[in-house]
Amino acid sequence: MVNNITHPILIVDENRCKNNIKRMAKKAVSAACEFRPHFKTHQSAEIGEWFRKEGVTAITVSSVSMAEYFHHNGWNDITIAFPLYPAQLYGLIKLNKSCKLRLFVNSADDVEMLSKYLIKPFRVYIELDTGYSRSGVYHKDKNLINSIIAACDSKENVRFHGFYVHHGGTYKAINKYDIEEIIAPTLSIFKEFKSLYEGVKFSLGDTPSASVLTDFVSVDELTPGNFVFYDWMQTKIGSCSLEDVALFAMLPVAQISLNKNQAIVHGGAVHLSKDFVETNAIKNYGQVVSISSTSVNTEPIFLSSLSQEHGILEGELENIGSSVIICPIHSCLTANLHSYYTTTDGRRIEKRVLS
Amino acid sequence: MVNNITHPILIVDENRCKNNIKRMAKKAVSAACEFRPHFKTHQSAEIGEWFRKEGVTAITVSSVSMAEYFHHNGWNDITIAFPLYPAQLYGLIKLNKSCKLRLFVNSADDVEMLSKYLIKPFRVYIELDTGYSRSGVYHKDKNLINSIIAACDSKENVRFHGFYVHHGGTYKAINKYDIEEIIAPTLSIFKEFKSLYEGVKFSLGDTPSASVLTDFVSVDELTPGNFVFYDWMQTKIGSCSLEDVALFAMLPVAQISLNKNQAIVHGGAVHLSKDFVETNAIKNYGQVVSISSTSVNTEPIFLSSLSQEHGILEGELENIGSSVIICPIHSCLTANLHSYYTTTDGRRIEKRVLS
Repeated sequence: MVNNITHPILIVDENRCKNNIKRMAKKAVSAACEFRPHFKTHQSAEIGEWFRKEGVTAITVSSVSMAEYFHHNGWNDITIAFPLYPAQLYGLIKLNKSCKLRLFVNSADDVEMLSKYLIKPFRVYIELDTGYSRSGVYHKDKNLINSIIAACDSKENVRFHGFYVHHGGTYKAINKYDIEEIIAPTLSIFKEFKSLYEGVKFSLGDTPSASVLTDFVSVDELTPGNFVFYDWMQTKIGSCSLEDVALFAMLPVAQISLNKNQAIVHGGAVHLSKDFVETNAIKNYGQVVSISSTSVNTEPIFLSSLSQEHGILEGELENIGSSVIICPIHSCLTANLHSYYTTTDGRRIEKRVLS
Repeated sequence: MVNNITHPILIVDENRCKNNIKRMAKKAVSAACEFRPHFKTHQSAEIGEWFRKEGVTAITVSSVSMAEYFHHNGWNDITIAFPLYPAQLYGLIKLNKSCKLRLFVNSADDVEMLSKYLIKPFRVYIELDTGYSRSGVYHKDKNLINSIIAACDSKENVRFHGFYVHHGGTYKAINKYDIEEIIAPTLSIFKEFKSLYEGVKFSLGDTPSASVLTDFVSVDELTPGNFVFYDWMQTKIGSCSLEDVALFAMLPVAQISLNKNQAIVHGGAVHLSKDFVETNAIKNYGQVVSISSTSVNTEPIFLSSLSQEHGILEGELENIGSSVIICPIHSCLTANLHSYYTTTDGRRIEKRVLS
């Protein structure tokens, strides 16, 4: 295991990460779903290669600049899972020349605009709002849906691919049965739409559903992202066990006040993000665990507060060493704050940095 | 004003920022305080030069790597305002060769260790915990304090400089009178210590106190950082007016649902951070403002929710354009998420990126 760190670092457990990828890829195959994993969580060309070894050839990203990064790293079939806005055209025109694109549209006007500027054929999804109310087209707005599909059908270079749902509601589930209950209405809408819109595809984006559902009969594509690492929030939701978590923050211990059951670590909001889970009005910004090759044990120590670079550890600190291993609350945001990962045996893995 | 952005960017109002620097530098002079501003908020060599023009020659940072960045950019007198831990020695040994350092120690052992490895003379502060209980030595622990000072006095290369307080409690103030009330016990402790420890210096780190206090009679040094930009939280606390805020996020509008009084912007936790202010159980992750050269008006629109790249705007959206200008909740964390700033007239200002 890595030791003697001079500053906060992120540790990737390569075996667990590869197992997470393999498991989800197999699940997609056995569910007869296309697997187009979301790469916004890891944002790393090297970890992308681990997906390629499992047969993945197409991916999902959340911005034009993220698409550019992965296209530059050899990915040529990319969904940009974010609502289209006109200023994205600058990047899309260039990407469209050498990369198969799938884009989100919210209106016939969006289709018009894309069709005019993107020369080579591309596909579009309608992002369907099935109740989560973040973005997309409300599922009952059939007039709008039909007008978008009609606009696609009228264009030589546009193909309507299908409906995409990211139901963020499952991230607020309290257990795996709750996940199933939250996603059930979406699956019913998929069934209804299957009979209305022949030949189109249905895509499901959230990690909790992809992790716990066993019946994907109305789903054609899975695009989860977080599962590559999972995190403390996902263990609480029931998407995974602690043994599946593949990303950790290793933080130097800076000051111990045993009499207060409190220690300061070098690890704050700029290393972990300010996401937290709350239980009985106690906020947890990061859970201390001990990891080895075969087990993960939760220690009764957690980060109770974060400032920019300081983290406050609370709990049973008697056996604390010179650093702690933290299971991050939300791995997507934690990973985004770092420019590289370190494997458990000390190898450096580069990743995309802020653009 | 900048327009036609292709992705979320940060806007720095150069005039306001320079005014903030000038005002605080003048305040320090008239209070007979050394001004050692904290550079963790802006993290930019170019903005550092704006401080130099106001006579600043010494700075404060929050990590060894941040010290390395600024030393590389011509700063040769740096306080590292973070508790010492042994693994920092790798970087400190190198910095000590060419940069005047002021370091935090929590024990006589810390002094021993530093004295052994850092060849050239350096100064140390005791970070004093005056009640905020984050880090440092509790102010009543005179035995510990005296042992640290004695250890310094016994070393040729170590000089005990004084006491440093960052009282994070003022960031939870509800108005400027509250700030004064929260910091008053710290100032009393300074007064008591002045009679106990002759010739030592007293340093105050928080932006709210530096902004609103008028009597700095027991303070010898001011090291605020956030004031360079201020933010929405500081306007709520009463540290500044909205006209002083010098950092904004400009976010493309991606999708408008007027019937829901809701819009999606490209701007999420990876562009703003998850810090929020809460009023009547409503969370605000970013306040929409319109900025011009002379005024700032708050619009009745705010970010009610953030995911990784999506922000949800709520409010009166009738006149919304293709982008919005957001006053960030906590500018230190927002700035940290970007690799550059854009001035209001479109010039790019480089900054430190994640290390």
